[in-house]
Amino acid sequence: MADIRIISQSEIPEALALLRARSGDDLSAVNQSVADILKDIQTNGDQALFAYTKKFDGFDADEANLMVSQDEIKKAYQDTDPKLIDIIKKAAENIKAFHQKQLRETWTEKDGGIMLGQLFNPVASCGVYVPGGKAVYPSSVLMNIIPAKVAGVENIYMATPPDSNGIIQPMILVASDIAGADKIFKMGGAQAIGAFAYGTASVSKVNKITGPGNAYVAAAKKQVFGTVGIDMIAGPSEVLVIDDGSVNPRFIAADVLSQAEHDELASCIAVVMNQQRAEVLQAEITAQVNRLPKKEIAVNSLKNYGMIVVVDGLDEAIAFANRVAPEHLELCIENAASYLPKIRNAGAVFLGAYSPEPLGDYFAGPNHILPTNGTAAFSSPLNVDDFMKKTSIIGYDEASLRRCYQDIAAFAEAEELDAHARSVRIRFEE
Amino acid sequence: MADIRIISQSEIPEALALLRARSGDDLSAVNQSVADILKDIQTNGDQALFAYTKKFDGFDADEANLMVSQDEIKKAYQDTDPKLIDIIKKAAENIKAFHQKQLRETWTEKDGGIMLGQLFNPVASCGVYVPGGKAVYPSSVLMNIIPAKVAGVENIYMATPPDSNGIIQPMILVASDIAGADKIFKMGGAQAIGAFAYGTASVSKVNKITGPGNAYVAAAKKQVFGTVGIDMIAGPSEVLVIDDGSVNPRFIAADVLSQAEHDELASCIAVVMNQQRAEVLQAEITAQVNRLPKKEIAVNSLKNYGMIVVVDGLDEAIAFANRVAPEHLELCIENAASYLPKIRNAGAVFLGAYSPEPLGDYFAGPNHILPTNGTAAFSSPLNVDDFMKKTSIIGYDEASLRRCYQDIAAFAEAEELDAHARSVRIRFEE
Repeated sequence: MADIRIISQSEIPEALALLRARSGDDLSAVNQSVADILKDIQTNGDQALFAYTKKFDGFDADEANLMVSQDEIKKAYQDTDPKLIDIIKKAAENIKAFHQKQLRETWTEKDGGIMLGQLFNPVASCGVYVPGGKAVYPSSVLMNIIPAKVAGVENIYMATPPDSNGIIQPMILVASDIAGADKIFKMGGAQAIGAFAYGTASVSKVNKITGPGNAYVAAAKKQVFGTVGIDMIAGPSEVLVIDDGSVNPRFIAADVLSQAEHDELASCIAVVMNQQRAEVLQAEITAQVNRLPKKEIAVNSLKNYGMIVVVDGLDEAIAFANRVAPEHLELCIENAASYLPKIRNAGAVFLGAYSPEPLGDYFAGPNHILPTNGTAAFSSPLNVDDFMKKTSIIGYDEASLRRCYQDIAAFAEAEELDAHARSVRIRFEE
Repeated sequence: MADIRIISQSEIPEALALLRARSGDDLSAVNQSVADILKDIQTNGDQALFAYTKKFDGFDADEANLMVSQDEIKKAYQDTDPKLIDIIKKAAENIKAFHQKQLRETWTEKDGGIMLGQLFNPVASCGVYVPGGKAVYPSSVLMNIIPAKVAGVENIYMATPPDSNGIIQPMILVASDIAGADKIFKMGGAQAIGAFAYGTASVSKVNKITGPGNAYVAAAKKQVFGTVGIDMIAGPSEVLVIDDGSVNPRFIAADVLSQAEHDELASCIAVVMNQQRAEVLQAEITAQVNRLPKKEIAVNSLKNYGMIVVVDGLDEAIAFANRVAPEHLELCIENAASYLPKIRNAGAVFLGAYSPEPLGDYFAGPNHILPTNGTAAFSSPLNVDDFMKKTSIIGYDEASLRRCYQDIAAFAEAEELDAHARSVRIRFEE
């Protein structure tokens, strides 16, 4: 039996339903325990934070050891392959350069006696969550912290769960130092989110919390939303490759598999123009999957949510991609850039045969923290805007207000807000 | 006893604590009933929606009458004062003009064989919530819908609870027609949010839900966040006026009171430079509040959360304002615009003696849906960005990927993501 199914254009509705059913947004199983943890952190501060850190991470945290020290960072550099440090620095440069293009500046416009505009300011502080566990992703540390740094956030705090000895992976510390974290706290889970949202004696309250995490972290972020800002709720990831037959099928098979190794909920989709190409790809994927160290995860991901979709043409392929709203969209087609105006929903789009998804994960500069599971229909890659906020500017002189004050007063009175009306009338009538 | 207290600079910490304690973000009292309603809408669609509309609004909704008809809109125009219609149109023009300045365009940059950029697209659909009840705010309809229209959202749906006869206030219908709503649904509360988030036979699922509402609406928005995008969770509002003594104190008293009439949780703050000025303002506010139709609400708001703060100078005043992060910040000071670079946290800032807050509520153009209760520290006025989303663009040619593929592969291998490494290596090594 093949490792990945082939489906026809007429089966697209079922395919979309299958993908949507992956939804990671039902957090009801953990909501109550998360609410309890948050309440405890809010009420008991450090004491609760240290108790949960002991309970969940096995680490005896206290006021003295909760924060990573300069010595620990120095040691992390010593424990990391110098070549890798160089690569992390190069990647950080590219990420910084791309995000600098997202910076927006305060503007004002004067028209006679009227000044209008928008102030752009960074948030004063942010808390960046970096998951722990077996997976160690220094690239995600760069992607989380650099946009905040570029935005000009003065206090960038990071949280990541330690092991039971209070150790954090050296690569994580190196990446956070290169990216510019101001403080690193050895804490994880809902308790870390609570500490950032409410503050404790050891952890300052922040304005914004970003970064992916498990269901506890996601539920906690959702619950504290409103007390602080958050970025998004991460769900299972996906790649969708549109293949017009012009690219080596081995490349496409490898790209599909790069997403399949993430987890068994990941979805890998190739969209091709005919049945013959579908079969070539299917064979290539089956051949390549057997060579992967994470073969078991990849095979299950392909079985669960992998598919090769045969459509009638490129327009149909793009229409399907827009409905999936994939995290990663590869256009392995000729003149790929010319199709950009047709792309409506995707986290990131990769153009042509030599732009595989890992290029974006690690190196090109755009953020790899992307909207997953169809949320690209309404949300964006993590970006500098996530760490900034706007203030509207309104300045009228006397003559300008005089010209419109009666309209304002009449509008306010129609809404039965008489004190509003009076605040303009009093300037001219009494 | 005076209607508004005077406090000194040393009492600011208590004042901030009092303001923060207003927090409207504890939705725990309604969370469970909201979850039940949302589940019911998700499972039973129209049937549940109609049942809740009957239960909460007393209206017998069905497939035929849920949506406002063209005849109803025509009748609404006939029932509205033509002068008010003109004012609504003028305000709509100003709002449109300001929001058009927020539009962002897709950009790409080529550097040798590397193309990077960002696609900007509107969301395909949005659901705008307009509260019902006694208060009728056509201005909020404009402020909600026009940014979506400017963003280019193709399907702009509005929900507002009807009375028991299925009637919606004419001014609301006129404003939504002028603003450009595509469909208006007679539904409210958590059931309206559920219908937008999950879709029913009569209501299309949308990508984004915006607009203020009561605790049920706020809790529902928070719960569906992730399934759809949302704007923000609205809390009690506030105005903070910085008064250097150069502006007629009657103006300032009127501006303070314009916010006090909203509700008893609203906070009205004046910041002055000396005790004498504080007493002048206190007397003026007390005199003016007695003339207000909504005197009772205003008096309670002033008693609860009103304050005149005496500080040592303008720098202290602005530092305090930045800590409050008020929804509305009036700079009733000389050379107000020159202080803009010092403003860090505010929803909207109003410059000088002739820019009272209602100018922004109704007319100037910037949005009046603003971050409340200190959330200006991390969020922004409703704006065009709320209805758009970004897609990153990454395009490398063969030579460009060749230059960096080994770095990418090494980085991926350090993270134990071998399939990621293979997807770049396979293009050059096998």
